[in-house]
Amino acid sequence: MTAAAETSAQALMARAIQLAERGLYTTMPNPRVGCVITDSAGEIVGEGWHRRAGLPHAEIEALADAGPRARGATVYVTLEPCSHTGKTGPCADALIEAGVGKVVYGMQDPNPSVSGEGLQKLRDAGIDVEGPLLEEQCRALNPGFIKRMTLGLPLVRSKSAMSLDGRTAMASGESKWVTGPAARADVQRLRARSCAIVTGVETVRFDNPNLNVRADEMALELLSAEQAAEVQPLRVIVDSKLRTSPKAFILQGDAPTLVCTTDRADLSRRERLEQAGAEVLVLPADKDGRVDLQALLEELARRQCNEVLVESGATLSGEFLYRGHVDELIVYVAPKLLGSTARPLFELPIERMGSVLPITITDMRAVGHDWRITATTDIER
Amino acid sequence: MTAAAETSAQALMARAIQLAERGLYTTMPNPRVGCVITDSAGEIVGEGWHRRAGLPHAEIEALADAGPRARGATVYVTLEPCSHTGKTGPCADALIEAGVGKVVYGMQDPNPSVSGEGLQKLRDAGIDVEGPLLEEQCRALNPGFIKRMTLGLPLVRSKSAMSLDGRTAMASGESKWVTGPAARADVQRLRARSCAIVTGVETVRFDNPNLNVRADEMALELLSAEQAAEVQPLRVIVDSKLRTSPKAFILQGDAPTLVCTTDRADLSRRERLEQAGAEVLVLPADKDGRVDLQALLEELARRQCNEVLVESGATLSGEFLYRGHVDELIVYVAPKLLGSTARPLFELPIERMGSVLPITITDMRAVGHDWRITATTDIER
Repeated sequence: MTAAAETSAQALMARAIQLAERGLYTTMPNPRVGCVITDSAGEIVGEGWHRRAGLPHAEIEALADAGPRARGATVYVTLEPCSHTGKTGPCADALIEAGVGKVVYGMQDPNPSVSGEGLQKLRDAGIDVEGPLLEEQCRALNPGFIKRMTLGLPLVRSKSAMSLDGRTAMASGESKWVTGPAARADVQRLRARSCAIVTGVETVRFDNPNLNVRADEMALELLSAEQAAEVQPLRVIVDSKLRTSPKAFILQGDAPTLVCTTDRADLSRRERLEQAGAEVLVLPADKDGRVDLQALLEELARRQCNEVLVESGATLSGEFLYRGHVDELIVYVAPKLLGSTARPLFELPIERMGSVLPITITDMRAVGHDWRITATTDIER
Repeated sequence: MTAAAETSAQALMARAIQLAERGLYTTMPNPRVGCVITDSAGEIVGEGWHRRAGLPHAEIEALADAGPRARGATVYVTLEPCSHTGKTGPCADALIEAGVGKVVYGMQDPNPSVSGEGLQKLRDAGIDVEGPLLEEQCRALNPGFIKRMTLGLPLVRSKSAMSLDGRTAMASGESKWVTGPAARADVQRLRARSCAIVTGVETVRFDNPNLNVRADEMALELLSAEQAAEVQPLRVIVDSKLRTSPKAFILQGDAPTLVCTTDRADLSRRERLEQAGAEVLVLPADKDGRVDLQALLEELARRQCNEVLVESGATLSGEFLYRGHVDELIVYVAPKLLGSTARPLFELPIERMGSVLPITITDMRAVGHDWRITATTDIER
C-alpha cells in the first residue's frame, strides 16, 4: 500500500471505530462493531454499526446502506466478520453474497476457537483480505468482550470517590460530601456501558442505592441516553449472609437484581427476597466464609457479562483488588481534605513494601469541579 | 486602543512575562520582572529582565539594550517601575531620563505604601502611562513576593508524595518506594524557586535529607541550573525540643540552615549545632509546646522569604494545613496502592464533615510515570 492509501485506509477505519462507539451502551453481550464501505473511487457508499443484540451486525447494516454499490467495494470493519450463525446469519456469507472486492479488518475475532475463520471464508471466496488495521483502537472498543472470550472472565472496573488525601467518609461514617453533577453523569455513563454493577450488602444497607442507569442524568443527547437506559445492567449484591432487606431500593424498578450468597447464610430469608423480585444464587464461600469472588466473576461471564463495574465500599472494593480481580480503577477525586482519621479508599491489608500493588495511571482529567483518575492494575494473568 | 493595538500590546507584555520567568530561580528576595521596549513602528528595540538581587532591574537592562532608541519609545514592564532607591537607583527616574514616551505596566507595586508612586512620577514627567495589562499573569510571576508585601507572610507551598490511595509509607515506616526521576527533578525546581525549605526534626532524624538544590538534578539547561543552584534556599528545621543531630546532612554544605526551637528545649544543645554551622532561633511555643508556626512564618517574611516550601512528614505538613498556613498543595502521586494500614498523607485530626478542608485542584499532569496534583487551599484570609 502507498503511504497515501495507508493514510486513507486508517481514516476509514477510524470512521468505522466512531460508528462502533455509537453502540457503546447498547450492544451487550455482543461487541461494539462499526463498518464503512467505499467504492473504487474511495467514496463512502455505506455505513453501519451494531445497535443492539438481536438487531443486524454492523456489516449487514452497512451492506443495506450501500445496496448495489457494495459490489466490488472495499469494506472496513473493526472486528473480523463472523462465520457462524448466531441470532443473525454469518456476516462473512453476506459480504460474499454482496460481491465485495476487499475486506479490511481491525482485529481478529478474540474467541481463539473461531479466530480467523471468518477471514478464511472470505479469502476462500476470492475476496482480498487485509488487516489488522488500527488494532489497538479496535481492541479498546471491547475490552470486556475480549477478556470474556479469551479468559472466560469479565473485565472488572472498580469505581470509587475520594478526597485528595485518599479518604471516602468520616470515621463516624458521616459522608455528606458528594462529587458534583459532572462526576455523577460520568458514573451514569460508566454504569451504562457495563453489563453488571456489583455492590456489597453493607452499601445496600447503609446507602440504599438503586444503582440503575437514569437517562436524565447521563448528560448525553436525549435519544442516546434513552436508548442506553433501555439496556439496564444486572445489579449484583455480594451478600454472604443474606442480610439484604427485601425493601431495599435496589430490588425495585425494572432492572434485574442478583443476590449472591453462600450456603452459610440463613437461606430461610431467600423466599422473601425472591418475592421482592431478586434472584438468589448460592455460590461457593472462600475460607473466610465470604462469597468467592472468582466464582462470582465466572458466573457473570457465563451470563455473558463483558464489563462489570464494582461500586461498593472500601471493604468489598479492597477485596476485589487484593485478590487481583480488578483490571481498571476509576477514582473520582473531590477537592477536599477529609483528614487522617477518615475512612480509607480501599481496605487493603498490605504490611510490607514487597506486597504493594503496582498500577499504571493512564489518565487524569477534570470532571466538573472534581477530577477523575483512571489506572490499570499491573497484574500478570 | 484599537483591537489590533490591544492584541499587539498583549503580545509584547506576554514577551515581557517570558523574560521575567528567566529570573524564576534567582531574583529573590526581589520580584521576577521583565521588560520590553518598542520603537514607534512597534519593533522591539530592547529587552531585559531582573537576574539577581544587586544586579540592575529589568527596566535598566532593557534601557541599556535599547540605547538611544529608547527615546520616545514604549516600555512594557510586568511590574510598576520603582520610585525608591534600593540597591539600584529608582527605575522611574531612569525611564524619565531616557526620554521614553509611554509606559505600559502589568501590575502595580504590591506594597500598599508605595503602590502607584512610580506611575505617578512617570505621569508627572509627562509620560503616557497605561495598565494594568495581563495583570493576572503578571501577578502569577510573584505570588510569594505579593503575599509578603501585602500580608507580611510568605507564600507557603506544601509538597508531598503519596500512592494513589493517599499513603506515604508502610505502617512500619518502611518507605523504599520513591517517585521517579522526572518527579525528583520537578521537586528540585520547586526548591530552587523557594526562598526557604521547611522540614521537621523527625524527617531530619529518619530520612536525613540535605534539602539542597542540585544543578545536575534539575533537568534544566546547564547554565540555568547552575545559576539556580548558586542561590540556595534557607533550610529550616522545626525542632521544638532541639533534637537535631549536629551530624545531620542538612547542616552540611554551603547553604545556611536555621534550627527553630522553643524555650522548652534543652538549650545546652544549642552550642554544638551552632558549631556545626546552624543558626538556632528560639521562637514562641504554641499551647502544645511546639514551635508556633505563625511566628515562624512571620520570621521568614522578616528575612525576606517570598516562597516557602514545606517538605516534611505527615505531622508537620498536617499541622501547617490544619492551622491554615498553606496556600498551595503539590502532591506527587505514584502509581501504587500502599493499602489501608499505611501512613496517611497528612495528619489532620478532622472529626466532622463541617471541618473538612476545601481545596481547589488547579492542575493534574503526568510527570514521568508519576502524576502531580496542584491545589490551592480555599482559606479566607
